[in-house]
Amino acid sequence: MSTIPQWVKNLKPAGPQGTELLQQERNKSSVDVEQLSNFLFTKDGLARKQRVLEILQNDKVFDKSQNYFAGRVDRFETALARAKKLRQLHIKHNFSQDDKMVANELISEPGPYGLHESMFLITLRDQGTPEQHEVFLRKAEQYKFIGCYAQTELGHGSNVRGLETTATWNSDDKTFTIHSPTLTSSKWWIGSLGRTANHAVVMAQLIVDGKPMGPHPFVVQIRDMESHQPLENIHVGDIGPKFGYNTMDNGYLLFNKVKVPHISMLARFSSVDPKTGKYARPASPSLVYGTLTWVRSTIVMQAGGVLARGVTIATRYCAVRRQFQDRDAPEWQKGENQVMNYTTVQVRLLPLLATTFALHFTGKAMMALYAASQSKMSQDAGKAGGPQRGAGPEETNAGSDLLADLHATSCGLKSLASYTAVEGLEICRRACGGHGYSSFSGIGPWYADYLPTATWEGDNYMLTQQVARYLLKTARSVLKGVDPNTNDTTLILSTFLARQDTGAAFDVLGNDSDIVAAFAWRASFLTFEALKHRDEQKKPWNSLLVDFYRLSRAHSQYMIVKNFYETLQSSSPAQEGMGTETLDIMHKLFRLYALHTLEQEASEFYTSSAVTVRQIQLARANAVMKLLEEIRPHAVRLADAWAFPDWQLDSSLGRYDGKVYEDMFYRASEQNPLNRVTIDPYPDSPTLFKANEAAALKSRL
Amino acid sequence: MSTIPQWVKNLKPAGPQGTELLQQERNKSSVDVEQLSNFLFTKDGLARKQRVLEILQNDKVFDKSQNYFAGRVDRFETALARAKKLRQLHIKHNFSQDDKMVANELISEPGPYGLHESMFLITLRDQGTPEQHEVFLRKAEQYKFIGCYAQTELGHGSNVRGLETTATWNSDDKTFTIHSPTLTSSKWWIGSLGRTANHAVVMAQLIVDGKPMGPHPFVVQIRDMESHQPLENIHVGDIGPKFGYNTMDNGYLLFNKVKVPHISMLARFSSVDPKTGKYARPASPSLVYGTLTWVRSTIVMQAGGVLARGVTIATRYCAVRRQFQDRDAPEWQKGENQVMNYTTVQVRLLPLLATTFALHFTGKAMMALYAASQSKMSQDAGKAGGPQRGAGPEETNAGSDLLADLHATSCGLKSLASYTAVEGLEICRRACGGHGYSSFSGIGPWYADYLPTATWEGDNYMLTQQVARYLLKTARSVLKGVDPNTNDTTLILSTFLARQDTGAAFDVLGNDSDIVAAFAWRASFLTFEALKHRDEQKKPWNSLLVDFYRLSRAHSQYMIVKNFYETLQSSSPAQEGMGTETLDIMHKLFRLYALHTLEQEASEFYTSSAVTVRQIQLARANAVMKLLEEIRPHAVRLADAWAFPDWQLDSSLGRYDGKVYEDMFYRASEQNPLNRVTIDPYPDSPTLFKANEAAALKSRL
Repeated sequence: MSTIPQWVKNLKPAGPQGTELLQQERNKSSVDVEQLSNFLFTKDGLARKQRVLEILQNDKVFDKSQNYFAGRVDRFETALARAKKLRQLHIKHNFSQDDKMVANELISEPGPYGLHESMFLITLRDQGTPEQHEVFLRKAEQYKFIGCYAQTELGHGSNVRGLETTATWNSDDKTFTIHSPTLTSSKWWIGSLGRTANHAVVMAQLIVDGKPMGPHPFVVQIRDMESHQPLENIHVGDIGPKFGYNTMDNGYLLFNKVKVPHISMLARFSSVDPKTGKYARPASPSLVYGTLTWVRSTIVMQAGGVLARGVTIATRYCAVRRQFQDRDAPEWQKGENQVMNYTTVQVRLLPLLATTFALHFTGKAMMALYAASQSKMSQDAGKAGGPQRGAGPEETNAGSDLLADLHATSCGLKSLASYTAVEGLEICRRACGGHGYSSFSGIGPWYADYLPTATWEGDNYMLTQQVARYLLKTARSVLKGVDPNTNDTTLILSTFLARQDTGAAFDVLGNDSDIVAAFAWRASFLTFEALKHRDEQKKPWNSLLVDFYRLSRAHSQYMIVKNFYETLQSSSPAQEGMGTETLDIMHKLFRLYALHTLEQEASEFYTSSAVTVRQIQLARANAVMKLLEEIRPHAVRLADAWAFPDWQLDSSLGRYDGKVYEDMFYRASEQNPLNRVTIDPYPDSPTLFKANEAAALKSRL
Repeated sequence: MSTIPQWVKNLKPAGPQGTELLQQERNKSSVDVEQLSNFLFTKDGLARKQRVLEILQNDKVFDKSQNYFAGRVDRFETALARAKKLRQLHIKHNFSQDDKMVANELISEPGPYGLHESMFLITLRDQGTPEQHEVFLRKAEQYKFIGCYAQTELGHGSNVRGLETTATWNSDDKTFTIHSPTLTSSKWWIGSLGRTANHAVVMAQLIVDGKPMGPHPFVVQIRDMESHQPLENIHVGDIGPKFGYNTMDNGYLLFNKVKVPHISMLARFSSVDPKTGKYARPASPSLVYGTLTWVRSTIVMQAGGVLARGVTIATRYCAVRRQFQDRDAPEWQKGENQVMNYTTVQVRLLPLLATTFALHFTGKAMMALYAASQSKMSQDAGKAGGPQRGAGPEETNAGSDLLADLHATSCGLKSLASYTAVEGLEICRRACGGHGYSSFSGIGPWYADYLPTATWEGDNYMLTQQVARYLLKTARSVLKGVDPNTNDTTLILSTFLARQDTGAAFDVLGNDSDIVAAFAWRASFLTFEALKHRDEQKKPWNSLLVDFYRLSRAHSQYMIVKNFYETLQSSSPAQEGMGTETLDIMHKLFRLYALHTLEQEASEFYTSSAVTVRQIQLARANAVMKLLEEIRPHAVRLADAWAFPDWQLDSSLGRYDGKVYEDMFYRASEQNPLNRVTIDPYPDSPTLFKANEAAALKSRL
């Protein structure tokens, strides 16, 4: 590596040093970081994170220093080594599921075992019979079978019913023939399939007596247990580089009339009788609500933490970075101004800071609601079923009003939360100015890996149709006079109907509960507007998709505002030891999130006459700007409360100690492989890299 | 590479084939692609592109097939080989500057000679004396000196005055001492510096007799002409991987009291007399307006083409991709629906399609205005000066009212246009659903490389202050009664003042010129609002930055709407052979861009009472949705008019022939190096890649 001369080693950044600046930031705020961290993650959660962190940091396979430099093949090789090691540590330290989750959060990269450890195991467990558990699940738990979940196809994403892969029942020899009739039927995007899996759960159209029975899951061996080469008549591989997620081997898979035994079809919910060849119908799809709702609630809660990484990095860096002078500053303080002091930076970062908490609390509340509903659900429809991704379940009716409400809500929130995290991360990256573009910012690579969340578990646009469909259905029942207290949606829609003529006069600038009511009003207004278009004006469904998207967003924003408000109102902050000073700042963050959103969506709020034009102008010109000023001094501590170890953030700009420039320079000059090569720059010379250097490089591999 | 079995080779995508679908799209539209292409690029321009394309395609060094797979070091090596070859072709085929530009557009990746061929040569030419041209420029033109432009520092971006690097005049031996006093003074982000340049134009604070004279340019040799090793007391290297732009070696540079001769200071505009040691003041900074304005106008025009790449890819793919069925479709046509038929897709893509033309025409108009003003400018301030990046020039007063107007306008438009292209490309990528995430979409990598445009040539947020400052200044002069016809800004502000009390009643839904007037009205309203805040209410500058950002955006949107409208009104479309049918569609695109923008910015339009709430509701519910329906059938042909060769797009999804799935599969299975390795997947085995494979891999380098 390039040797750094002494005169360079002696250089310091121009003062004041980042460390001093961050210390000043922390000194001037009264936010109790520990209290807030405990409230967000509990003491146990934080202790767990620390314990696992030490284990990982002591193992050099998890050293991150080359992550931003390595190419695809090298990164995958490292990710595989890490996956294996993590599995060994899991056994050695007898990790719990929570320990495992925390480890993956800290490592912060998708790994080759990712889909084996999630969808493959879950599907075998939830959709397999006891016999199938013996044959498949046991070996999978021992990592003898390493699997993936093969549903999406080259030509078919969200629309599961459109899958082309077939599984035809052969009554003569009691087998199924798995076949890929077209190129578009090739399985595609399947995580852990490209190079890693030796088995796959394949979603295929079951055909019995020439009749299609819809998509069903089949367990199929795809690679030899010894040589790991693909089996005959199976074509499998990695689908190539992506915008991110390149430590994962997303794969493709094609079958040429491959026969599998009767036991391959996961038969807990539907099956083909081997003797009679009769097909038994699946149990009510409503039983898969649970898993789907749970997965989406997780995405909502995680979205807060995902965004918080970017906010933490940008907030710390914008407190260290100084550019230009304040035009109005008196002569005696004409030093360069911290970027965080510019309102154009505050207006981008601080609402996002508020959003991280809003999403975290909302996800938490959703999961609590889900847990509460579990028992009810099992009464409704037997034990909770396994997840069947895609649109299938959304197409069906609610298992119960409460569940349907929770399910629809989770669709809209998943869409809004993942969208918000994606957009927010990029805003944070840009708020870091030029250096945000460097991989060392730590935001870009993280953003790139998170991006697909906006597409999987239901495309963010597709999902909003489910929400709209549910809200229209509920509005119809409200018009028919259903009990307002059936669930929260019936309640706000009934309230709107009752007050519709007397009109709304919400004091959004003076009263927090009125803010929540205003969001409920706007969502209800849009619901009945959409209902008018569809039921009275008989407009085509397709012509209303844009309205539906807006409606879903409005309803989800109401849910977030409501959950944020109720979390702060509840007794839990006090019970869990949050002091009034910290709680007071949290209330300001609630108002900032709500009023900033209201201002962004202004036209929907005044057309629904939830608020007046004047109120919106005041919210923009006064309320929001004042809140920015009040929250500004606490920004760094509020970010600190998210408790990200530097090792997890892996960011020069987001270092807790503010040594931004030292770290940027160290990574560039000492860790950068490109600096190992000397080139021949002249156009007429054929040499590119000087020979000796090229050799040095090759030795890398 | 993995051998594809025959049964796989025989597979076709499920019908209808992409080729048929795109053919249908092209058949049902009356847009004359050739007419429109000629209007956008001229016949000569298109012929040039074809000629250069053939030259490049016939040279295997420009083969793009490994671009998406290679790691940083490999990509840089290839980019260097291409840069050298392009230079050789330049000589062999006697390329013009336009040929060269077209070649770079077709290659579509930043290269190691990038900054040598732009800023280094330009600066030597524009800021060097005849003597310096002999000493430096000649050798640079022969690629003996290969250079870069070293201004930005680790701790200093837009604020040029904050630069820390010093150049101290030594009267005793007639030299300058270039020195980096701190780590933050390290030059950073400097294109072509990391590995390639042997010389640099270094912007440093000139110090004469202990007095700082501000930043000045110095030509400094940094590497040995033979060994290409850094010279003594110079530390230089590549700054590491970035979100994109990884074929470019952005570098860092530190000096330890390096002495350079008197001739090193580029002395056309300011100099130190070697005998007396007297410093001569620079000529009026207004003379650099020209170059800056021209550079920004180019960015505006290019933004249209940059965005058009994403729009072309997404439009073609959304015509090939089919998902779900139209809920309202009759049974007999229950096939899957082209994604482009969903209004949620149309509302994202078609306004962007309109935007590509809006930006192209605006940039073109700006450059025409610039050319027209050249002569006037030279009278004002001698010959046009060289570009001095950063905030310097914006801080100064206008050279002439016309130029000041053009300059301020170009700041706001650069900010809005690059922002719009960046946002738009990502919207296009997501509109491609899951496959948009694959590098083979061609959008992600292109987006990542374009991203920095939002930061350089003036940060998009910083720039808006220049616009606001100018608009406030102009508003003051209008209040003082300056001639309304001084320039366009004085005209719209005067018009607003005159009609302010009688109020506006623009028929934005019925009359195109009223749309332009409404945008002018809103921009003028916001200008006088901001003036009130600053001059009457004496609000701090910093507290108004958010208003200034909104103001700049409003003014720039007015400029775009105005230029789009005037281009279509002018005689040139007809003159250049555009038929009425095509022109009619262009008018619809104008309305779509304008009304969609108006709807997005609704609250500013009604608070300025440029339009009524009712008009906005109608624009949203009727006008825009109707325009989407009318433009939809022409989408593919309108994209075709941008005339991107497949070779340039390098996208599976955007192929002209619609063979999307065949191309995705081919790239994944045949070109993907990761498919060369077989792994050992079991956690308890230490092996990662099977040995022989690892060897095969190494041979890559």
